[in-house]
Amino acid sequence: MIWIASIQCFFGLLSVFVFRDKTFTDFIYPSLLCLILAFFLFIRTNRGEQKKIFFREALAFASFTWILMGVLGALPIMSVTGVSFTDAVFESVSAMTTTGATILTGLDEMPKSFLLYRQFLQWMGGLGIVIFVVAILPMLNVGGMRLLKAETPGPIKNEKLAPRVASTSRYLWLVYLCLTIGCAGSYWLAGMSPFDAIAHSLTTVSTGGFSPYDASMGHFQQPIILVVADVFMILGAISFALHHKLFTARAISGYWQDEETRWFLIALAVFSVILTVLAFNAQTHHSFWESLNQAVFHVVSFMTSTGYGADDLSAWPAATAGFLVAASYLGGCAGSTAGGNKFIRNVITLRILKHQMLQAIHPRAIMKVVYQGKAVTNDVIQAVMSFMLMVAISSMVLTLILMLTGLDFFSAFTAVSACLNVLGPGFGEVSSNFIPVSDTGTWVLTLAMILGRLEYFTLLTLLLPQFWRD
Amino acid sequence: MIWIASIQCFFGLLSVFVFRDKTFTDFIYPSLLCLILAFFLFIRTNRGEQKKIFFREALAFASFTWILMGVLGALPIMSVTGVSFTDAVFESVSAMTTTGATILTGLDEMPKSFLLYRQFLQWMGGLGIVIFVVAILPMLNVGGMRLLKAETPGPIKNEKLAPRVASTSRYLWLVYLCLTIGCAGSYWLAGMSPFDAIAHSLTTVSTGGFSPYDASMGHFQQPIILVVADVFMILGAISFALHHKLFTARAISGYWQDEETRWFLIALAVFSVILTVLAFNAQTHHSFWESLNQAVFHVVSFMTSTGYGADDLSAWPAATAGFLVAASYLGGCAGSTAGGNKFIRNVITLRILKHQMLQAIHPRAIMKVVYQGKAVTNDVIQAVMSFMLMVAISSMVLTLILMLTGLDFFSAFTAVSACLNVLGPGFGEVSSNFIPVSDTGTWVLTLAMILGRLEYFTLLTLLLPQFWRD
Ligand SMILES: [K+]
Ligand SMILES: [K+]
Repeated sequence: MIWIASIQCFFGLLSVFVFRDKTFTDFIYPSLLCLILAFFLFIRTNRGEQKKIFFREALAFASFTWILMGVLGALPIMSVTGVSFTDAVFESVSAMTTTGATILTGLDEMPKSFLLYRQFLQWMGGLGIVIFVVAILPMLNVGGMRLLKAETPGPIKNEKLAPRVASTSRYLWLVYLCLTIGCAGSYWLAGMSPFDAIAHSLTTVSTGGFSPYDASMGHFQQPIILVVADVFMILGAISFALHHKLFTARAISGYWQDEETRWFLIALAVFSVILTVLAFNAQTHHSFWESLNQAVFHVVSFMTSTGYGADDLSAWPAATAGFLVAASYLGGCAGSTAGGNKFIRNVITLRILKHQMLQAIHPRAIMKVVYQGKAVTNDVIQAVMSFMLMVAISSMVLTLILMLTGLDFFSAFTAVSACLNVLGPGFGEVSSNFIPVSDTGTWVLTLAMILGRLEYFTLLTLLLPQFWRD
Repeated sequence: MIWIASIQCFFGLLSVFVFRDKTFTDFIYPSLLCLILAFFLFIRTNRGEQKKIFFREALAFASFTWILMGVLGALPIMSVTGVSFTDAVFESVSAMTTTGATILTGLDEMPKSFLLYRQFLQWMGGLGIVIFVVAILPMLNVGGMRLLKAETPGPIKNEKLAPRVASTSRYLWLVYLCLTIGCAGSYWLAGMSPFDAIAHSLTTVSTGGFSPYDASMGHFQQPIILVVADVFMILGAISFALHHKLFTARAISGYWQDEETRWFLIALAVFSVILTVLAFNAQTHHSFWESLNQAVFHVVSFMTSTGYGADDLSAWPAATAGFLVAASYLGGCAGSTAGGNKFIRNVITLRILKHQMLQAIHPRAIMKVVYQGKAVTNDVIQAVMSFMLMVAISSMVLTLILMLTGLDFFSAFTAVSACLNVLGPGFGEVSSNFIPVSDTGTWVLTLAMILGRLEYFTLLTLLLPQFWRD
């Protein structure tokens, strides 16, 4: 059931969109291929309908969807821009995972329909990931997300996935659409053209970060546009289930009562202060207000894993890159389109570490790690810590592999972190695009994006031999 | 009791050593100061003798000992070399924690007695840390070291620390001395002068890495010397309790039966193969055997956190630095003088991650993480993971702080990892010594060495307000 619902949704929307663009045969053949594939998959899954579809199938389905969509989405990119298959898949996966890393240059001269296709692909990816993390992950407790169960509405006790996914998808889709329309309207009021407003709203709410311009947000002169982007990037990085709950209840103060959102906003403020001080001291801008605006924008862009740029960061103090990469590791809130560790895990991790120290002082006392007023169970603690360690280990191992392909340490590490955290921009050799990366390196980074987007464990379980045994 | 025993041991040996060197008044005044301080501490602790000394006191004692010894050991360094107080404390703490990072240049021209003092300080530090990790840490379960309890001989059930420390210290001291004598003899047979053999044996067995020469092990031409160093660095990085057990039982095969030692040796082999291939491909040496010898030596030097150098690593491929830093994070075995994460934690962490994936596939199955044939308890799992996360977080935070003091990312990160893992040498700006680091940065790195040496949690608990309340 889930197969059908999601695949139809994906393919339907993709083909509708693709067909609209009548100027490009580049789009028509791939979309026909998609329809044929969808048809066969539909037949296949209809046959298997009787079987109970659960943990294993959900894991496999999520991984294969992203990989398949990545490859299919790559076909128009290849035929329009003439890049290699490797690069096209990288670009397409970068769109579908809302990473926003690019191997293209000269965007400003490309056909508008193609640019909008890229933006739309990212918007679709954002919707897909929200459905995945809100409806599927909590059932699997991947990375400790069982905690979120309490937040999602409706009955949740080990029911079959399909009806749940369908009902959850409906309201998520509504929230997502409202935010996008609000964002596009605000951009337009702030001074963007209608095309720019729509194109950027698609990648702001999805915290994707693709832009139809090489200069990204630096293309626009109005400071107010950065502020609009700030607001909608933050909204896109807050739990969509929470948005829905608070919109229907009309209780805006609920954002501050939610521990995860509260700490996310506090962290944004702290990092903004640090970066403003750094930028202002280095006199990279004309006024304090410009430094503030730019610093806040970049902190929001990196912490929400959007990855928009608006300035030449290499002119900023060297420590800026360090803080921005650290911000991208922290990430946004769970149940949103943002990447990174997510604040629910950051908060729980810090509490576990404090708990460890207290336990060392009072070894016989019985203490609990508390989150949002409830004691966190051992299995959630271990899942959260496993996730965090997986982030550290993946960063280290993938950086080493990229260094073997010839990148220097700084470029390799920032490229890996940009992909794992589905952030987008790197530093050093990969600061403007990922063209300097070798073919092998590009495939490694493509995998890194899927790995990070699917919260590591979803993809990695497929590698275990036990997964394929019965 | 533990206060008195350890302080007397430390101060006694230090003053005996210091007094031996009659040519330098630089040594006499500080050593008098030490004796006076020891006397006052002796009186103070005698008064407090009746109180039960346990967890909190053990934690505080360990931290303060290393800080105090660092400051006191710095005095002769200041007066002999004329460096600032900051730099002298760094050098002294670097010695006491067996880090081996240096802010000195022109070692070859310095007085031999001073150079031997530096080496001896590191040897003392090695002994201190072995007693600390074997006798005290398992009682506190800092970083999951309760697991090691099974390994240490004698009754261990919540007894008072003092008699246990005394009995354990005796055999550790014996093992340490035997290894050092064996190492010095082997160096001498391999062609070193008696002074060089003794000086290097003191910092090989302690995996400290100080050398009386600027070129470190590169000072010697005989390839066989590197092989001798390999053997004794590895022995110094294997659990001393295990050494004692197997020496008395005359069962050399026991090393391979010990899971931690086995994986440590396997990892050494794997990294050696990778580095040999890298070095041989880049043709940095005249022959395959030279590449092999150099690659194995550097892998052993970094993985055991000794930090000896024997070649100009900047001529090696860029990925070399990445692999060596990664090796230093892996570290040696628990209960030895080595730094880093220790293999017992590496092995358990990987098993926990695998366990998480299996649990995602079979959510209802009851599975256990097994180490050395026994199920690992939840509190050990959480302590191990907390330790690993603390390593990652400390590395990130301290790197950011160092970048604020003006270092570039690569230098800052490798400097921090060199200090946290008590390794010694960094890369980039800090590849030959730590002089380019600012004063603030030097203090940060001094703290990092103590933080890493005392397994993070020992020092960090002192920062909790709860520690100081009753
Ligand atoms: K992004
Ligand atoms: K060392």
